[in-house]
Amino acid sequence: MASAISVLSMDAVEKAQSGHPGMPMGMADVATVLFTRHLNFDASTPDWADRDRFVLSAGHGSMLIYSLLHLLGYDGVTMEELKNFRQLGAKTAGHPEYGHLPGIETTTGPLGQGISNAVGMALAEAHLAARFGDDLVNHYTYVIAGDGCLMEGISQEAIGLAGHLKLGKLIVLWDDNGITIDGKVSMSDSTDQRARFEASGWKTLACDGHDAADIDRALTEAKGSDRPVLIACKTTIGHRAPTKAGTAKAHGAPLGADEIAAVREALGWELPPFELPDDLLASWREAGSRGADARIAWEARLSGSAHKDEFYTSMAADAAPAIEALGKYAAELAEDGKPTATRKASQAALEHVNAALSFTVGGSADLTGSNNTKTSDLAVLDAEHYDGRYVHYGIREHGMAAAMNGMALHGGMIPYSGAFLVFADYMRPSMRLAALMEQRVIYVLTHDSIGLGEDGPTHQPVEHLASLRAIPNMAVFRPADALETAECWAAALARTSGPSVLALTRQNIGPVRNEASENKSLRGGYVLREAAGAKITILATGSEVDIALGAKSILDAEGIPARIVSVPCLDLFMAQDMNYIAEVLGNTPRLGIEAGIQQGWDRLLGAFGQPYDFLGMQGFGASGPYQELYEHFGLTAQTAADRVRSLIERN
Amino acid sequence: MASAISVLSMDAVEKAQSGHPGMPMGMADVATVLFTRHLNFDASTPDWADRDRFVLSAGHGSMLIYSLLHLLGYDGVTMEELKNFRQLGAKTAGHPEYGHLPGIETTTGPLGQGISNAVGMALAEAHLAARFGDDLVNHYTYVIAGDGCLMEGISQEAIGLAGHLKLGKLIVLWDDNGITIDGKVSMSDSTDQRARFEASGWKTLACDGHDAADIDRALTEAKGSDRPVLIACKTTIGHRAPTKAGTAKAHGAPLGADEIAAVREALGWELPPFELPDDLLASWREAGSRGADARIAWEARLSGSAHKDEFYTSMAADAAPAIEALGKYAAELAEDGKPTATRKASQAALEHVNAALSFTVGGSADLTGSNNTKTSDLAVLDAEHYDGRYVHYGIREHGMAAAMNGMALHGGMIPYSGAFLVFADYMRPSMRLAALMEQRVIYVLTHDSIGLGEDGPTHQPVEHLASLRAIPNMAVFRPADALETAECWAAALARTSGPSVLALTRQNIGPVRNEASENKSLRGGYVLREAAGAKITILATGSEVDIALGAKSILDAEGIPARIVSVPCLDLFMAQDMNYIAEVLGNTPRLGIEAGIQQGWDRLLGAFGQPYDFLGMQGFGASGPYQELYEHFGLTAQTAADRVRSLIERN
Repeated sequence: MASAISVLSMDAVEKAQSGHPGMPMGMADVATVLFTRHLNFDASTPDWADRDRFVLSAGHGSMLIYSLLHLLGYDGVTMEELKNFRQLGAKTAGHPEYGHLPGIETTTGPLGQGISNAVGMALAEAHLAARFGDDLVNHYTYVIAGDGCLMEGISQEAIGLAGHLKLGKLIVLWDDNGITIDGKVSMSDSTDQRARFEASGWKTLACDGHDAADIDRALTEAKGSDRPVLIACKTTIGHRAPTKAGTAKAHGAPLGADEIAAVREALGWELPPFELPDDLLASWREAGSRGADARIAWEARLSGSAHKDEFYTSMAADAAPAIEALGKYAAELAEDGKPTATRKASQAALEHVNAALSFTVGGSADLTGSNNTKTSDLAVLDAEHYDGRYVHYGIREHGMAAAMNGMALHGGMIPYSGAFLVFADYMRPSMRLAALMEQRVIYVLTHDSIGLGEDGPTHQPVEHLASLRAIPNMAVFRPADALETAECWAAALARTSGPSVLALTRQNIGPVRNEASENKSLRGGYVLREAAGAKITILATGSEVDIALGAKSILDAEGIPARIVSVPCLDLFMAQDMNYIAEVLGNTPRLGIEAGIQQGWDRLLGAFGQPYDFLGMQGFGASGPYQELYEHFGLTAQTAADRVRSLIERN
Repeated sequence: MASAISVLSMDAVEKAQSGHPGMPMGMADVATVLFTRHLNFDASTPDWADRDRFVLSAGHGSMLIYSLLHLLGYDGVTMEELKNFRQLGAKTAGHPEYGHLPGIETTTGPLGQGISNAVGMALAEAHLAARFGDDLVNHYTYVIAGDGCLMEGISQEAIGLAGHLKLGKLIVLWDDNGITIDGKVSMSDSTDQRARFEASGWKTLACDGHDAADIDRALTEAKGSDRPVLIACKTTIGHRAPTKAGTAKAHGAPLGADEIAAVREALGWELPPFELPDDLLASWREAGSRGADARIAWEARLSGSAHKDEFYTSMAADAAPAIEALGKYAAELAEDGKPTATRKASQAALEHVNAALSFTVGGSADLTGSNNTKTSDLAVLDAEHYDGRYVHYGIREHGMAAAMNGMALHGGMIPYSGAFLVFADYMRPSMRLAALMEQRVIYVLTHDSIGLGEDGPTHQPVEHLASLRAIPNMAVFRPADALETAECWAAALARTSGPSVLALTRQNIGPVRNEASENKSLRGGYVLREAAGAKITILATGSEVDIALGAKSILDAEGIPARIVSVPCLDLFMAQDMNYIAEVLGNTPRLGIEAGIQQGWDRLLGAFGQPYDFLGMQGFGASGPYQELYEHFGLTAQTAADRVRSLIERN
């Protein structure tokens, strides 16, 4: 049966003249044993909530999963799709893309991400099993990972977290083929991987990756573990290719006609490309439906379960109750606004969110007291308390972000977690994938500017708002006071098909608004203060809205009426219809203020041909008390007023 | 003597009402033994090339190094500076900043970076020792790292690389205090760190971090190793603080008057803050000069060495010979331009660079054949051949970038290395630090757009040019043909106080220019094709210059004369004087073309109030042959011409 994977993979790569045949051929035996004897799934119902999850962390070997999905009879994974591997419009993209085909649990390709997503999936499983019982939630998460995944630093964060949390139903099959793109692994690494995993509390096993009985033995043994398991599968990359097997030449290029003919001969495979023997296909299709009974039994258990409604609620993850609660809370804030750090305002908003929803799971990368992400009702989730809803992720921003992707993909929860905004750089590859996969993951990123003060330029984001806004489908919220913070939380929860950043201050700011009739942050930008006969529109975000308001006081007194526009989310604002944008921007010159770089502002400020200026940061920050830094870098109401005057004079 | 560190640290944090007293107090004993008995340095000559390097990877404990530098008598590290800890304008910033004070070998604070810089420093030492002999280069690199550094994934990449390369003169002192910000390490991690390091080929030792004799024993033993060494120093955070020692409360906040008084009493320290007993200071100053003899002897050896000139050349790292060679090569290319992938053109340019300079050290994160970073004359640098000049960094982008920072900081070499542009996200925290530290590190980032084709959206950068340009002091070069590639290499080598990205194509492009009288890329943008009576200026970078030229052909034929501006480096172009920018941009409407997002272009395109449009990417890419992708996303000469027509009509 494994031959079918090898042949389909090498043929599809050959036809596309692009792709990676070596891994699918090397891991065909392992995958066959896993999918035909161990993985609990039903190809007819790929969204069965309690299915085992399978993650192809070594995403370049995408033909492995495409072959499997076709052979097992997943809907829509036609032979035509395999023939169109890596072609524009095909669902069989170069790397497996979540949402393209059923059975693809996550988008992989950037190395180390899949194994780290899988930790989040296994974490989600352990949590939901604790909440709903083993009869509703009880599945494994399997990963195929290569040397690349294990060399990426993110894997250490994932391994450390999984080992600490004793995620026993996480099983990683390591394609131990000793080959990377540059040549032998031994050219760049000498790590004893089993010892490394064991150091973080994993059980490790080994097997001959071309011996079905041995693979079966290892998988069987792995399933009894109370710790996560690494199985080192000794394989040959490009297995059976006569001259290229076991070399880097099999990794990422078509094998060529001669090698392919030789593989066919070795396998006794006589059919031309993209044709399969009927009996073989029948065996595979049978394997595809072998979990049907288990799935039907599970559905019956769910129907009769006392937890049924709550389970559906978690799986639907409808944030409406929290959004409603935040609306009421915003009305209270409008009545009774006080200066506050938006990170603290975020915690207050989260109290309402976490009370209204049972399926939020929070955390922080070891900055709980700084990110203010732990609310009063959240118990810690650890190896002894999987039912907790707060994860101490440790100093592992990247692994945390990747785990949150896995949690969101698994379903049954909305993950959010905290870090300093400047360290979004550490999480960026996973954040990008959340955006690409359209997952609702919420990043609480505090200490969002030079306003953090003394920690200095290494900790002060200046380019981060711009660089995060640059990621397609990422919404960056930067609220100006407690009320906007509540609104932005509601907006982030409402964004069901994309991740959100909440960029929050360390220092006290606001309040700037005293009415909450509607969630104005949902449109990204709005007129905060109108001015009759306005000569300038000042746009600002977050802590700089205070500065804008200060400038307005100065200017109004001088007879220069100033409109103030608050822009809690530039991304959402720029996605509004042109009429709304035009109305908010007005027909005057404009000044933008943000304690970050100018990049990303010009398009908005210059829209419809108006002259504009921007007051922000020119480069890195400095260490010192924040009030002095704001003065030092000229981020003051006085400077803003000066800029407005020159802008008006120039025109 | 250690008491002086503890007292200065707690007092400075108390005065600033900001900072981290716990680590300096916990590691005072270890640091005292290291600096007074082992570290080979001379405080009077902090730039002695063969000094031992000391890296405070746990940068939040900055008062540890500030105290040490003052006590040892480093120039400019006055008591006044300690009193002004964390104040605006002081050199004693919240985290140690390279360039602020002598004796600070690298900027630290973002966790995991310092230990990874140190791997680069130890690598540089091993390489230079192989080139120049032990009598000129023979020093250790010491690191103090905390739990945070070890939990960050980058540390695994660094550990793996150092272990593989058997960097025996790298010694990491781990502040094993069991405490993180959130509380006990055991709340988030269960890793056996010694076993983990040993799995990657390190020797590990342990000592009582408050027992000078035991620390001394461990350091002595460490220095005899042929493998890198981890010393687990069992310490108590905030050592001697009566109620806060050993708890997270000692980590990141002032201790308060009561605790401070109790520490003074326990130490029998009667002096007020910022005063030191004369005899104690004298002992420390003596320690500061104990390496003077060794330094003088080394200078004598250098004077008499046959390698003297070559050593000076390497340390000066003057790239002028390469820049000259590239100029001549550019002239050849102007005569004989051919379509080429700029990644291949980069390799050809590098042949000239590596032949002209003996001190470039190249590499790749396991993409040697794709990044084209290995030239014909470069031998591999590995544990058996430290004199090689090419490093197989493995699948470790982040660790590679941090190691390159360490190599540049060490001196004696210009590091460059390769990865895919999209995976700049993995390296970003280290790239930011290279920019902040003003280091000449060169990133060869290939596969720079949807032009990479079939690998699909996970591998196709769309926001990366924008997000890299956003980093202050980062120059992003994107050449349009082989000639510009040679020019951009020369420009990157000439940037002695900042890092550069070379964003290069996978696919063939150009040639676009046939004269090389001057390096036009040095100004970032220039007129590639003038047009009498121009009605449009089209600006483009890299592969899209071909599209701009195609559009020009269409438009010229229609009687719409088009000027073409090539912008190989937006950052440098926008830093030119206004007259030059105005001259290049001209007085017509403008169209920008780049196979990336619009962010970052508006400021230039709209300069001086001209109407403009931008042709680029709106979101993520797709998998398919690149020519089809360019059609699919409308990146064609025809679309560009259409856009120009509408732009002109609208005005």
